[in-house]
Amino acid sequence: MSEEDAVRQVLRNRQLASLGDAYVNFVYSLALTKVNKRPEGVKVSDRVLAQAFKLAGLRDYLGTRVTRKDLANACESLLVEAYLSDLLSIEESITILTQDPGGVAAGLVNLLKVAAEQVRQKAQAMHDC
Amino acid sequence: MSEEDAVRQVLRNRQLASLGDAYVNFVYSLALTKVNKRPEGVKVSDRVLAQAFKLAGLRDYLGTRVTRKDLANACESLLVEAYLSDLLSIEESITILTQDPGGVAAGLVNLLKVAAEQVRQKAQAMHDC
Repeated sequence: MSEEDAVRQVLRNRQLASLGDAYVNFVYSLALTKVNKRPEGVKVSDRVLAQAFKLAGLRDYLGTRVTRKDLANACESLLVEAYLSDLLSIEESITILTQDPGGVAAGLVNLLKVAAEQVRQKAQAMHDC
Repeated sequence: MSEEDAVRQVLRNRQLASLGDAYVNFVYSLALTKVNKRPEGVKVSDRVLAQAFKLAGLRDYLGTRVTRKDLANACESLLVEAYLSDLLSIEESITILTQDPGGVAAGLVNLLKVAAEQVRQKAQAMHDC
């Protein structure tokens, strides 16, 4: 399996997306809490997730005829996979989410790029073994 | 402020509860994922949270005329306060949630007891300073 196929497999994993939904809402809320200096809890919408996925340049990993929900699920699966595989800790994710001058939504785009690259590199390392 | 007042103040903090909602859904989902060995995402209901709060013996911290929603919010505030104050890491919380033979719902009761005790001890330590 190529690195691209490994990333694609993560992005299409619906089961991972269900845990990823809880994960993304938590890290995004924690990032808003740090930025605004008061506790804040949000449910990140499919619209925001789908938009970030496209801005991160990941759209081509998925085929045609994908819905906004598919793109949102792909974000959730990718980010929680990076967490579960110890590729990105919560602390590292919060740092990336909070350091873009464009705000946490812009930070999400950066986080998706880093997560995709880490998952790709891990697949490559396993392939090279 | 006594230790009991400090705990009460956390339990009644509605802003903390909004972040706590995202936190509890995530750690509970992660615990289910570890127990069932497959990714699972859940929204922990107010019913489950309120029940766990009472079983943990914390009901007396709140006054009379509290709703199920108030009890659920108190759980969420307490658990995320313990996390934000570095009293309970996610790893420690997952261990407590997953090691009760009664399942994750039973583990939640144990986790609430530990969190309340940690918040109480921290208040006492600050009081003693």
